[in-house]
Amino acid sequence: MKELRVELDKQRSYPIYIGAGLLGQAELLTRHVRSKQVAIVSNDAIAPLYLSKVLAGLGDYQTETVILPDGEQYKTLQYLEKIFDGLLANKFSRNATLIALGGGVIGDMGGFAAACYQRGIAFIQIPTTLLAQVDSSVGGKTGVNHPLGKNMIGAFYQPQCVIADADVLDTLDDRQLSAGLAEVIKYGLIRDPEFLDWLEANMPKLLARDKAALAYAIERSCANKAAVVGEDEFENGVRATLNLGHTFGHAIETGCGYGQYLHGEAVAIGTGFAADLSRRLGYLSDADVARVLAILHAAGLPTRPPTEMSTEQYLDLMAVDKKNVDGKIRVILLEALGKALLPISVERAPLQATLNAYAG
Amino acid sequence: MKELRVELDKQRSYPIYIGAGLLGQAELLTRHVRSKQVAIVSNDAIAPLYLSKVLAGLGDYQTETVILPDGEQYKTLQYLEKIFDGLLANKFSRNATLIALGGGVIGDMGGFAAACYQRGIAFIQIPTTLLAQVDSSVGGKTGVNHPLGKNMIGAFYQPQCVIADADVLDTLDDRQLSAGLAEVIKYGLIRDPEFLDWLEANMPKLLARDKAALAYAIERSCANKAAVVGEDEFENGVRATLNLGHTFGHAIETGCGYGQYLHGEAVAIGTGFAADLSRRLGYLSDADVARVLAILHAAGLPTRPPTEMSTEQYLDLMAVDKKNVDGKIRVILLEALGKALLPISVERAPLQATLNAYAG
Repeated sequence: MKELRVELDKQRSYPIYIGAGLLGQAELLTRHVRSKQVAIVSNDAIAPLYLSKVLAGLGDYQTETVILPDGEQYKTLQYLEKIFDGLLANKFSRNATLIALGGGVIGDMGGFAAACYQRGIAFIQIPTTLLAQVDSSVGGKTGVNHPLGKNMIGAFYQPQCVIADADVLDTLDDRQLSAGLAEVIKYGLIRDPEFLDWLEANMPKLLARDKAALAYAIERSCANKAAVVGEDEFENGVRATLNLGHTFGHAIETGCGYGQYLHGEAVAIGTGFAADLSRRLGYLSDADVARVLAILHAAGLPTRPPTEMSTEQYLDLMAVDKKNVDGKIRVILLEALGKALLPISVERAPLQATLNAYAG
Repeated sequence: MKELRVELDKQRSYPIYIGAGLLGQAELLTRHVRSKQVAIVSNDAIAPLYLSKVLAGLGDYQTETVILPDGEQYKTLQYLEKIFDGLLANKFSRNATLIALGGGVIGDMGGFAAACYQRGIAFIQIPTTLLAQVDSSVGGKTGVNHPLGKNMIGAFYQPQCVIADADVLDTLDDRQLSAGLAEVIKYGLIRDPEFLDWLEANMPKLLARDKAALAYAIERSCANKAAVVGEDEFENGVRATLNLGHTFGHAIETGCGYGQYLHGEAVAIGTGFAADLSRRLGYLSDADVARVLAILHAAGLPTRPPTEMSTEQYLDLMAVDKKNVDGKIRVILLEALGKALLPISVERAPLQATLNAYAG
């Protein structure tokens, strides 16, 4: 097992445990549980696979389980309320602990519920998708979607620990595996050119679910994420670079209806957009853009946007991105492969040129 | 105008402005506004009286208004979402500012919406009831109710400033004025015995809306609140004493249906319960309890609980209070008049004796 740390102030630093067979090691979990009351939030796809394994280690606790339907379309205030219903019906106190057992949606919702329940209870992330293990479970961004914008309602709220058990990836379908690789590739593109090289060389191994390759990719991704979050927890600067491709990607997720594209798929398409726009603004070469598209394709990811979305629809949806200032659209661009720029406002002309070249 | 400060770490300290005619001084407001986008959240009772006055000072800004129905029964996640709808429909960015213009319900909801919108935007409290001016607008407790428990979903989130204009109390009805006095009396009971003496002597002036007396009561209450919050922002200790009477009061509000009792009325009844229980446990004398009930009566407040609630219903509702640990009921008691104890677990017998003596 590897242990990384997210270094934050005020005793809020926490470990990320990465390795095989971690779900069977109850002590990893219980050392971070604060009281006898433990709630587990999961979904109807993950719970049948892993809930009993987690519960087996919690025999001495008062456990309650809230199972949500699986999918981004349920990441709403309405379904969030079901978590509060379960906690209150069982009289859970402010010293209770909430465990989020699932992918990014469950992690975001469980974390946000923990942030708000009685103004904050302890929580633990047990991510069960590659995407959640390498990205969304680390760093404390929690929240739900709004029909007009992705992740628009939420909180910065850090977990007690993250337990990334590589074994759970065995049950992940290929589409979910590829979606997770979109965020893995992101770290190479924004700040880790050596990792980008490694990913190009090892993509076949990752897709074949080579355990050692996957473990290395998770660990290096988490190390990148922990470094960025430790430097800028509340996204006043460099943390925004983790949003490469996300401004476009969120517009796609919202515009097509949550759940049609997996988050990682939308990010992959958005990364292609960002690379194209970086080229138009003189940062990347044609060869750089081709290299970006090639590695996304190699990971089994889409790079063509949905044909049903118009340029105007993109612009309208991108106007509510969290990076914007006074309603002006700002995006993350690449200065080079392996180096992202801080968010910048982009002139309408090149942005429209990129959108027109891709959009329907 | 008086200016008090709530002293917090990390440049989060903020002023409370107290005085007459403050709503007409736009500069007080605009010095705390961060960008061109300003949202005002109010209700349909307050907006007709004061919204135009606030908007008059914001002519240079992009302003949007969200008006909620008036009443505790609308302090829910469903109505909270209406605030997000308004902000997103108008493409408000993360650097926008939200102004909560209203009583405790609007302040709690506006503050919680600001805490969650894009994971946190700036907000300003303009409390328009005595209760909000002396208590709920100061200290950063925000949130909404759940059918099973009051204020169960929320955040600690501090405003940029609080503007308490004593002139707005002119339009407050007598019932609301008395409700506010419940929290004023609380400060005397928990930590300020001299203020308790002053309140006993000056209650007729306060009820007659003597401006100088009201201004003094607001200022001294805010000074007490600011001191407690500055010492213990996240309620790990002394801040819990501000909940005198609230454990019982919240049970009454939830049990009778939100909106039937005003918060201050429920707190007044709960304060009588807490005094009675303090007597049963040997802290207060019969004369002390009589003095507590007398000042509540003098303020026009009820001290008899609703007859429709049984002892069992109180115990059930109190079992989800935020002060509880592992589901065990904890309450705030008075060691003497002017001195509260930290939350303590109470044996079933004296608690039931108090409830039986009062409950239906």
